[in-house]
Amino acid sequence: MEKANTMLLFFFLFQLAFSSTRAADFCVGDISAPETPAGFHCKKSTTVTVEDFVFSGLGKAGNTSNIIKAAVSPAFAAQFPGVNGLGISIARLDLAAGGVVPLHTHPAGNELLLVTQGAILAGFISSSNSVYYKTLHKGDVMVFPQGLLHFQINAGGTTAVGFVSFSSPSPGLQITSIALFGNSLPSSLVEKVTFLDDAQVKKLKGVLGGTN
Amino acid sequence: MEKANTMLLFFFLFQLAFSSTRAADFCVGDISAPETPAGFHCKKSTTVTVEDFVFSGLGKAGNTSNIIKAAVSPAFAAQFPGVNGLGISIARLDLAAGGVVPLHTHPAGNELLLVTQGAILAGFISSSNSVYYKTLHKGDVMVFPQGLLHFQINAGGTTAVGFVSFSSPSPGLQITSIALFGNSLPSSLVEKVTFLDDAQVKKLKGVLGGTN
Amino acid sequence: MEKANTMLLFFFLFQLAFSSTRAADFCVGDISAPETPAGFHCKKSTTVTVEDFVFSGLGKAGNTSNIIKAAVSPAFAAQFPGVNGLGISIARLDLAAGGVVPLHTHPAGNELLLVTQGAILAGFISSSNSVYYKTLHKGDVMVFPQGLLHFQINAGGTTAVGFVSFSSPSPGLQITSIALFGNSLPSSLVEKVTFLDDAQVKKLKGVLGGTN
Amino acid sequence: MEKANTMLLFFFLFQLAFSSTRAADFCVGDISAPETPAGFHCKKSTTVTVEDFVFSGLGKAGNTSNIIKAAVSPAFAAQFPGVNGLGISIARLDLAAGGVVPLHTHPAGNELLLVTQGAILAGFISSSNSVYYKTLHKGDVMVFPQGLLHFQINAGGTTAVGFVSFSSPSPGLQITSIALFGNSLPSSLVEKVTFLDDAQVKKLKGVLGGTN
Amino acid sequence: MEKANTMLLFFFLFQLAFSSTRAADFCVGDISAPETPAGFHCKKSTTVTVEDFVFSGLGKAGNTSNIIKAAVSPAFAAQFPGVNGLGISIARLDLAAGGVVPLHTHPAGNELLLVTQGAILAGFISSSNSVYYKTLHKGDVMVFPQGLLHFQINAGGTTAVGFVSFSSPSPGLQITSIALFGNSLPSSLVEKVTFLDDAQVKKLKGVLGGTN
Amino acid sequence: MEKANTMLLFFFLFQLAFSSTRAADFCVGDISAPETPAGFHCKKSTTVTVEDFVFSGLGKAGNTSNIIKAAVSPAFAAQFPGVNGLGISIARLDLAAGGVVPLHTHPAGNELLLVTQGAILAGFISSSNSVYYKTLHKGDVMVFPQGLLHFQINAGGTTAVGFVSFSSPSPGLQITSIALFGNSLPSSLVEKVTFLDDAQVKKLKGVLGGTN
Repeated sequence: MEKANTMLLFFFLFQLAFSSTRAADFCVGDISAPETPAGFHCKKSTTVTVEDFVFSGLGKAGNTSNIIKAAVSPAFAAQFPGVNGLGISIARLDLAAGGVVPLHTHPAGNELLLVTQGAILAGFISSSNSVYYKTLHKGDVMVFPQGLLHFQINAGGTTAVGFVSFSSPSPGLQITSIALFGNSLPSSLVEKVTFLDDAQVKKLKGVLGGTN
Repeated sequence: MEKANTMLLFFFLFQLAFSSTRAADFCVGDISAPETPAGFHCKKSTTVTVEDFVFSGLGKAGNTSNIIKAAVSPAFAAQFPGVNGLGISIARLDLAAGGVVPLHTHPAGNELLLVTQGAILAGFISSSNSVYYKTLHKGDVMVFPQGLLHFQINAGGTTAVGFVSFSSPSPGLQITSIALFGNSLPSSLVEKVTFLDDAQVKKLKGVLGGTN
Repeated sequence: MEKANTMLLFFFLFQLAFSSTRAADFCVGDISAPETPAGFHCKKSTTVTVEDFVFSGLGKAGNTSNIIKAAVSPAFAAQFPGVNGLGISIARLDLAAGGVVPLHTHPAGNELLLVTQGAILAGFISSSNSVYYKTLHKGDVMVFPQGLLHFQINAGGTTAVGFVSFSSPSPGLQITSIALFGNSLPSSLVEKVTFLDDAQVKKLKGVLGGTN
Repeated sequence: MEKANTMLLFFFLFQLAFSSTRAADFCVGDISAPETPAGFHCKKSTTVTVEDFVFSGLGKAGNTSNIIKAAVSPAFAAQFPGVNGLGISIARLDLAAGGVVPLHTHPAGNELLLVTQGAILAGFISSSNSVYYKTLHKGDVMVFPQGLLHFQINAGGTTAVGFVSFSSPSPGLQITSIALFGNSLPSSLVEKVTFLDDAQVKKLKGVLGGTN
Repeated sequence: MEKANTMLLFFFLFQLAFSSTRAADFCVGDISAPETPAGFHCKKSTTVTVEDFVFSGLGKAGNTSNIIKAAVSPAFAAQFPGVNGLGISIARLDLAAGGVVPLHTHPAGNELLLVTQGAILAGFISSSNSVYYKTLHKGDVMVFPQGLLHFQINAGGTTAVGFVSFSSPSPGLQITSIALFGNSLPSSLVEKVTFLDDAQVKKLKGVLGGTN
Repeated sequence: MEKANTMLLFFFLFQLAFSSTRAADFCVGDISAPETPAGFHCKKSTTVTVEDFVFSGLGKAGNTSNIIKAAVSPAFAAQFPGVNGLGISIARLDLAAGGVVPLHTHPAGNELLLVTQGAILAGFISSSNSVYYKTLHKGDVMVFPQGLLHFQINAGGTTAVGFVSFSSPSPGLQITSIALFGNSLPSSLVEKVTFLDDAQVKKLKGVLGGTN
């Protein structure tokens, strides 16, 4: 009894010394506070619960009733504050038959695609302009190095599902055609920096909501 | 025609200047060569193909015909050289009914578990000795910060499947009971550093193949 | 005289340009403010004094009048804000005769033990389940790679003292037996993930203050 | 005399202890050896001379006698081994009147453009699809965050010159239109992932040397 | 029409999911708020404009009407908040005939000097006490590894200009003679740690404004 | 029995999958092979023993029979290959009565000094030219941020001993007066970049073995 009490006392002090003030292990993001170059501020560790480390939004399919017949549902630091500062995040990818995730890059993270249903034709283009693409099936994994152009296309007649992990809690996303045609970048500039024809640029600006 | 040739010439030189010698984008591991603190040496980029970026080993269930009714199938840099140097990797987790992934840590990487089938009770213990655990269902995600003790247990009556991503191409794995009872660490030392009884230590050393 | 004044003027402006607003050199922690993934916020450099860079708490022995006859006195960022953001910290280790630092890990830092008095049997277990241990004497140094299970035991008949440096200002500490038996993790879970007997688990939960 | 000798002796031993085997300061790249994830192997420090730290290729204008009337001359690790492992590199940019550096990204480095002659219209597009562009004049500096689409266009009637620094010794370069139209990526795929018309894709494939 | 609207809707939601709350791409510094070990807090992305990414202060020569006939004009994070968190910055260097940048180090960044006018004799000293120096001309580049003593001297009869890039947004600057003679470090200490004569130390303390 | 065998079989396969080829935990340096930017190559893990993780050279005093009455005995990666790649190292510091470690910097690591015997006056100078110094006694700790000028002086009448830890396995060392006067840097250059008198420079060049 006394022995136990002494030991308890010891450990109480021992742990206290190491853990006081600072959890050290994690930094659940407080997304309401200003950000820093290393991510969001940490929530006080006394207010952290298991719910901070669990994200349940990827259990059901995203809505693919749109032109590209695709949906991406992210669990990045902004949606899933438990990954803040931890160098990892995930997203769900739904591709209806004919669905496409258009050409895009993630400026701040490597991507690893796991196919869990159907077939997906996935590929990327390297800095030295080599093309790497392959049709992936259930259980296949493909890695897309940081910052390189890549795409995913449903390669079967039925819905395909994948999960993409990233080596960053906030990998970013830049869809090339949206970046080119879906904002206020003037058509004349787009044409100069892409060699595309004026008619093509204006047509896609129309479709994708760009101005100028 | 001539215009195209001129342009081609330009781009040939342009790309050459930037890409010569160094791919910059990736470093597919040459696992036969000595390692470095940053990972394996890079294969020559001229020998790299799409197969280096694809891993197909996770398509089928691991063999759970064992005592813990569990299997872990990794796609780390040693198995999947395409992730070498990229700060990400993945493994498949199969848990038959009653299956358990015993208490363990990954010394060099944060872990993100995605449940794709069944129910898994997963949890971790923090440096300040708080316990965080919850039963996860299909589509749920849970993050386990680097270096902390954690576990996964089948929480349903049927097979459960999960995929675990890591923020490292080589996260390592240390199963506590294997580390304690499955090697040559003398029983007397194990007892001193864990407070376990001699009989308990010797029993588990017997079961798990430890000596001394 | 005039020469000196001119030069002074120059240097005043020169230094000002480089140092204004930002010290760049260090970031003494303000432990009262919210943390970030990179550590504590910086105190204003105008309020920093030499005392922020000096820690005097390691000059005397910790209290080893406890069951494990050991004491650990940390100078981590929470106790010694001068190391905040600098990737280094230190702690003092006192081991009375028979003293033990139980099996533990540091989730976020490599450790380097220097023995300054007596003899210490120290060891660690690797991911591939190899055991490395040795009796260290005064002046010996041993390194324990990040995240791996390790321990220190007094190996002589007299008090031993050591100092442990870490490659992190907040390395964390997880003592395995405290993590298993000193909190609310249910006995049935502990047994499943460790293969320990129910009686053993309940006995240690009693000793170490665990519940459930 | 004797004093000097004693001191010399001391310093010889002192420096030796610290510097033996390892230079620590730099790692001039041996570009003939296999690469590692952290860059090229180091040349032996005994063979390093000041020439390894100096690059003289940026003294004259690149050849802008091509369709885009532009030239980029890099001093990256592959051309300038002195920057290997040091997290910095530079390139010269020449833009004749009407010259353009087409839309591109650097997968592995932030860019800082300094205009030293003429006027350059430079811009980038963010992940959240905002457009930032401005005409820069001699002495102006603009930063382009890692991995984002950006471009540079001569904005005056005369030759413009700039120097771009990178936060990486091997930042990589991916010109969007070359990646899309200058390789073997099939037209049908290009169209699917960009929404471009078949005629446009085939026209540019013709101009830029793409196949399929 | 309807098609376009559907697509627009899709992309609106798609982009929103990825970009909400967090820009991910950059972290323009709010230099009025407390700093963190990773740099300044981020300005709200909604208030960021192209002006945050452009710095125009390097367009004209610094004032070299001083004893060392030199001027350094930095565009570091404190002056140019757009580089905050991005691992790069730049400064302009003006050296009138006879001008000198005295021996100095940058504690937190590698330096890359580009000469754009005149001739500059530049050099550094390594940890193993090797000396590397050379006269650079217009268009030459030299790299100075982090933390090493280096200097720049006008090597021609006319004004020289250079631009120095750094692998850090806040590289710091420590001019050796200012550190030794331009503050309150007592003469007796300076003499002990440098072997300089008392008369020499006191003379330079007088010139450079030091006390004690 | 059979049960145990089954379990053993399981764990054999389980561990194998995770640990094959790559240890992940550590990278004991092979100092005979070429270096990389991240450090030495790793010894094969099968040849690693506990002796690789232990360094016994710091047990006795260094030889202080020299002009500065000081000795520094490093256990850096070149002397202690077990710390290779681990971000930590240590050195022993002996200061006889009157002993001095002259003004110096470590280009690649923060330093933490622990005094274990006697009294040491230690200090550093910041980028903004503030001076921080204090007399430390047994058990006191002081941190010196990376790249800043600092010194240590015996502040008592008897031998002092300290141990300095670094946040790098190869921190480097640059002693200012040796860098200035102990090599081939011409006197005229030294004078220009330091403002020292010709007589002083030549005197110290004589003492410290410099040429030119």
